[in-house]
This record gives sequence, structure tokens and C-alpha cells, in this order.
Amino acid sequence: MNIALMMENSQAAKNPIILKELESVSDSLGHNVYNVGMNSEDDHHLTYVHLGIMAGVLINAGAVDFVFAGCGTGQGALMALNAQPGVFCGYCIDPSDAFLFNQVNNGNALALPFAKGFGWGAELNARYIFEKALTGERGAGYPVERREPQVKNAGILADLKAALACENYVDTLKKMDPALVKVAVSGERFRQCLVENSKDEEIKSYVLSL
Amino acid sequence: MNIALMMENSQAAKNPIILKELESVSDSLGHNVYNVGMNSEDDHHLTYVHLGIMAGVLINAGAVDFVFAGCGTGQGALMALNAQPGVFCGYCIDPSDAFLFNQVNNGNALALPFAKGFGWGAELNARYIFEKALTGERGAGYPVERREPQVKNAGILADLKAALACENYVDTLKKMDPALVKVAVSGERFRQCLVENSKDEEIKSYVLSL
Amino acid sequence: MNIALMMENSQAAKNPIILKELESVSDSLGHNVYNVGMNSEDDHHLTYVHLGIMAGVLINAGAVDFVFAGCGTGQGALMALNAQPGVFCGYCIDPSDAFLFNQVNNGNALALPFAKGFGWGAELNARYIFEKALTGERGAGYPVERREPQVKNAGILADLKAALACENYVDTLKKMDPALVKVAVSGERFRQCLVENSKDEEIKSYVLSL
Amino acid sequence: MNIALMMENSQAAKNPIILKELESVSDSLGHNVYNVGMNSEDDHHLTYVHLGIMAGVLINAGAVDFVFAGCGTGQGALMALNAQPGVFCGYCIDPSDAFLFNQVNNGNALALPFAKGFGWGAELNARYIFEKALTGERGAGYPVERREPQVKNAGILADLKAALACENYVDTLKKMDPALVKVAVSGERFRQCLVENSKDEEIKSYVLSL
Repeated sequence: MNIALMMENSQAAKNPIILKELESVSDSLGHNVYNVGMNSEDDHHLTYVHLGIMAGVLINAGAVDFVFAGCGTGQGALMALNAQPGVFCGYCIDPSDAFLFNQVNNGNALALPFAKGFGWGAELNARYIFEKALTGERGAGYPVERREPQVKNAGILADLKAALACENYVDTLKKMDPALVKVAVSGERFRQCLVENSKDEEIKSYVLSL
Repeated sequence: MNIALMMENSQAAKNPIILKELESVSDSLGHNVYNVGMNSEDDHHLTYVHLGIMAGVLINAGAVDFVFAGCGTGQGALMALNAQPGVFCGYCIDPSDAFLFNQVNNGNALALPFAKGFGWGAELNARYIFEKALTGERGAGYPVERREPQVKNAGILADLKAALACENYVDTLKKMDPALVKVAVSGERFRQCLVENSKDEEIKSYVLSL
Repeated sequence: MNIALMMENSQAAKNPIILKELESVSDSLGHNVYNVGMNSEDDHHLTYVHLGIMAGVLINAGAVDFVFAGCGTGQGALMALNAQPGVFCGYCIDPSDAFLFNQVNNGNALALPFAKGFGWGAELNARYIFEKALTGERGAGYPVERREPQVKNAGILADLKAALACENYVDTLKKMDPALVKVAVSGERFRQCLVENSKDEEIKSYVLSL
Repeated sequence: MNIALMMENSQAAKNPIILKELESVSDSLGHNVYNVGMNSEDDHHLTYVHLGIMAGVLINAGAVDFVFAGCGTGQGALMALNAQPGVFCGYCIDPSDAFLFNQVNNGNALALPFAKGFGWGAELNARYIFEKALTGERGAGYPVERREPQVKNAGILADLKAALACENYVDTLKKMDPALVKVAVSGERFRQCLVENSKDEEIKSYVLSL
């Protein structure tokens, strides 16, 4: 599985800590991690709105299978990611949240708070969240006897989001402020992840042309 | 301020508990509460996807100013509400979340978990969340020195969601599965809230015609 | 009500933040706050073990009615305070904990984590905890129908602790390492609180003689 | 390692759920679990004060190495266990708490809330807590550079508790209300655990004689 980690300016200094925990969990499970957001305060400047667009591009291009994003409280990232077609982003503050989100909602992204509640033990909590988010059967239901309606509802939400969106994600990108999109897709590691992993030529070409 | 409470089938039995806490806090602040979701397990059957549509209608019609929604984990409600144009929904498990969401993101909806972590003290936690969500200046920034970029980012996200949506929410409604929309807008208390408070004739007429 | 705040070396730098929130809540309720632990990293050096002794002295002398203590995780303070006769210390990470502790256990101290989970919003969480810890009838039971066994159990625990302790707290103090006790009771603000508020001449005289 | 699980009357119905998670984690690590509290609402009736005495007996007799206890909020168990000589009981609501308690405090017991916050996902949270409580080097410090003072403070607290207690735990038992102690030590599974594992003949003989 290809996993993207996306952090924005307000908590960029914590990227090495979070990345280390994510890589440690992902490596042991055979997943690949792409650190496509800011990796320090001096990196290419991104806000949570940019993270939403980045997640939209990578998910819709099939370049990554799952996104971990975040900001100070995680709420901005949460709303920005969910604003994008094809992105289904939950919110996670403890390991059980991660497990339940997989079982009940089976989405493709999680937003985390990187400042709210972030004190001693926060990197441990992040690791435990990654462990539970990345293991176990997905969409198995919780409690298990509620699997059927839960899977059904996830499908209905997916259909609804698809119905509200353009058929083509490139058209979605064209509807957004070009200056905003350009900043979102200009990061070097982001572009490399897209080039190496995109399964959608049209999205890739369009993004690289910006 | 007009406030809607929206609960779905899996946690409908808890509606009286939550409503009582919300009304107690809202009454003391002079707000009106509209209990537009399920009020018991036998009520008009709704899922979190319906809650999203209901929030979309009430917010876009100007019938309510703020929505509290939820489901078992709150994640389904969270994604369903954020899928709607004009709805900016955070996630809240403790009172500080509610305060920070107001200060940093200044959205118009919060999703709560009504089963995850819901044991002794859960109704107290809900009350404290309502207290902090409904008091204090909104959009004042947290920490306060970050107000400017936070207000700016909230505006950029709002513009982006507006750019991706139809100009007219009735057109948005028409893009969704009619059967799904019909169930969402058929509840008696929902319709009453819309009739009494809508500031948008077009949305009201269309919804009532379904 | 007289309330003591006690912080130790590892989180001493946060004392002004916590004190401000506690004073703001206490002032509005007519309570007095005594900041008897470290008020900065350069202050008289204290560990959580000292906090336990300080709480033991002030509670047993009747100088304060309630103690808020803490350390990095709060666990050290928790164990150190509960090791003292007459001190009944709960643990608190959210406002509902504070309320429930009052209702169910009706103790006289709470330990808080001042590093674990201490990020954005932590000072708000502390304020909300103080609000709920210091308001409402104490020992009223939760759920209310369980009041009787809860009050009874609190009494049995109190009797058990009394049976295990020396009859006289000065004798308890004499059993502990004198060097440890001396450091615990040497802080200027601690001694002032004891002098001004002690209702037990023997404890006061003994402590001041050290 | 021998591990005791102790639950009291208010949450006894949840014992099978918690026991299953604890056994699942412990079995994989080669630890033995002794379910010495109530295993259903109809079992030998225990309160959190009894749990304290039970933990005191088993720990001081060397029959078990670690105790997981709890009650509705966990606060009663917490105070009752810490009232006993030789028992060092932390409080745990999430997996990081368990890890930090091991690293920083290296105690021999943890109290958990079995009603407060106990909703969907609570059994998962319990499992994750057991995982983190039972793995990893103990007393290694957190952050690691603070190991030395943390180990030192844990030792000072242990010395202080020892100084306050009778030299002999049987004498401690004799100071408590005999009727209370008798109920605490009458459970069949408790006695079996003591008989099979006690390393202290005097405590074992005295307890069995009651």
C-alpha cells in the first residue's frame, strides 16, 4: 500500500517525529511512505487547504491508497480533505478511532491533531494510531453484526460524493483557484510521488503542466 | 441563533439525553433548538448520509446557523456533512475541541460520537461541549496571534468549496439520488424547522415539493 | 474554600499558565488559591514525592480544603498524594473526570498531567477541569441512584486509610526521611499558607520547627 | 509474569469482555492471568475497597507481579490500591498512559475506568492498553534523558511508603476492619491464586486462616 503523509506550516517542525513513527510502522507491514507535505518550517509553504488538494490529486490518480494529514487541531485538514471528490477522511485522536474508522467507514484518509493534545506521549499515540489504522481487515463492521448497513452507507456516501463532483478530477482541479492549486502541487516530493505512482495519465499530465 | 440537532438510527435511543443537555445550554443562552433527526428508534429512519443532506438544506436555506450531528463514531456524520456545499463540520470529543473549532475554523457544524467512548459521564461531556461550542467570540484565533492566517485559511476553504459546488443549492440537491433526498427531507420536525425559518424561498419550495 | 496548587520541577515552567486559569475560576467562585509548589524552573526544587508530603501537611492541618497537583503524566503526583493519610487524590484529564470524582468519590485532591497530552488547548482543558471540580454539590452520586453505596464506599476507604495511619499526622511526618520532609516544607509560599490557615497547632509548630 | 485482573460489583458484568482482551494479550506474551475479582454480577460481592486489599495481599505475597483493577470511573480502585503498602497504582485511559506509566513510574498496578468513557471501542482500548502495559523495558524513562531522576523518584516514593507501613504486611492486614478483609480474601479464584503463587508463607497462612 502507498501511504502519503501531509503536514502544513503550523506544525511542520514536527514532521520528522511523525514521519519516523509512520515509517517504522509502515516498514514492518511492507507499505511505502511518501512524505509529500512540509518536512520543516523552511520547506515549500503549505496550508491545510493545500493538503486537501494534494490528497485529492494523489487519491484520484491512484498514486497513493491512504493519506495521513493533519494541522494544529486536525479540523482544517479534515474539512479540506473531505471537500475533495473521492477523498473520505476521518478524524483520529486515539488508536481505537483508527480501528473503528477502518471497520465502520473504510475511508482513505485520516486527519490528526498535531498541536491539540500534543504533549508527552504524542509520538507514541501517533505510532499506535498508525498501527491500528494499517492493520486488520477493512470494512468488517463494528460491532460486526452491523457490517451490512455500515458497508451500505459507506457506498451511498461514495455515490453521493461522486454525483456531486465532476466526472473527471482534472475538471475538478480546473474549477479551483489556479494559484492555490499550483502551490499545492509544486512540492518536489509531492511531484515525485505522483510521477512514480500515478495510474491516471490525464491527472498526472495536467498537474505536471501547472 | 437557530441550532439543529440531528441523530441517526444507530444511536437514536440516546436522542432524549442529548437533546436535554443541548436545550439546557441553549435556553440559557437564548438560542433555539430544532431536534430534526430521529428522536427514538421508532422514528422516521435516517442514516448519517441523510443527516448530511439535511444539514445542507438547513444551512444553505439559512434556516439554522449551527448543526450538531452525530452517529456511532461521529465519523460518518462528519464526512456526510462535509460533502455538502456550505457545510463546514468539525469533530468534537471534548470541550476544548469545541472551543478551538470555533476560534480556529469558525465552521457551522460539529459531529460527535454518540457510541464511541459513550459511557458514564458522556451526557456531561456533551453538555460541556455545547457550552464551549456556543459561547465566546467566533473566529478569534488560537493561539490569538495566529488569528490572521486562520481566518484567511477558513475563507480560502469556503471559496474552494463554493467553486466546486453548483451555484444554487437546489441544483446540488437535484444531482443527488432523489430517493435518498426524499427520505432526508421527509421528517416532520425537519420540515417544520425549514418552513418556519428558511430564508431561501427556492430551497424551501423545492424541498417541500418532494 | 482554600485551594492549593502544587507543581514540581519537570513542569514548573507551566505554573503561571495553570495558576492563571485556576485563579480565574476560583476568584469567580469566592475561593482562595495558594500556589505552594514551584512557580518557575528556578524556584525551590520539588519532586512529586515532596508534593505528596505538602498535600499531607496542608490537608491534615486543615490549611486547605482541596489540592490540585500534577507532574509530567500526573501519575507520580497521584501515587505520592495517595500515599499520605487523609489525602484522597483522583486523576483528571477531562472536565467530566473532575465532576465524576466529586460526585462519586468526593476526595480532596486531583492530580493532572502537565506534559502528557499537553498541547494546544491544554490551558483551556485545565480551566474547564477547575470549573467542574469546584462547582456542584459534592458526593451526590453518579448515576444519582448509586449515591448510597458510593458515599458508603468512600467512608469505608477513609476508615481504612485512617486505620493504617498513625493517629497523629506529626507522627506520620516523623516516620518519613527527615531530609525529604524538610525540603517539602521549606518553600516560602507553602509555609505562609500553613501559617495563615492551619487549624492544627501541633502540625504547624512541628513543620515550622524543621 | 503473573497478572491479576480485579473487577468490582458496579462493572462486574463487563468482566468477560475485559478478561478476554487481557488473556489474548497475555497469552501471546507468555504471561498468566488470574481473574480474581467478580466475574459476573452474581459473583462474590466486592467493592473497590476490597480490590485494594486484594491487590495488597497478592503483591506483598509475591503471588502476582502486576494488577489491573478498575471500577466505574477507576478512581475508587486507584485510591484503594494506592492506600496499600507496596502497591503503586497508576491510572490509564489510553495506551500511551500505560506505556508512560511503565517508563516513568514503573509501578505494579493500573486502574482503569470500566464505565466512564466506556462505549464503542472500549474493549479495543482495553486491549491496546494491555499491549502497551505489558511490553517494553520498564523504568527506561520518558523522555529517555529523564530516566535517572525518574528512577530515583520512584525509589524515594517506594521508601516513603515502606517507612509509613508496618514492616510486615500481616500486621497491616490486622490493622484493617476484619470484616472488610474477610470479604476481600474470600473469593475462590482469589484464594486459589494466592495458594498457587504466594512466595510468602506468613501472608498466605494468615489470609487462608480468615
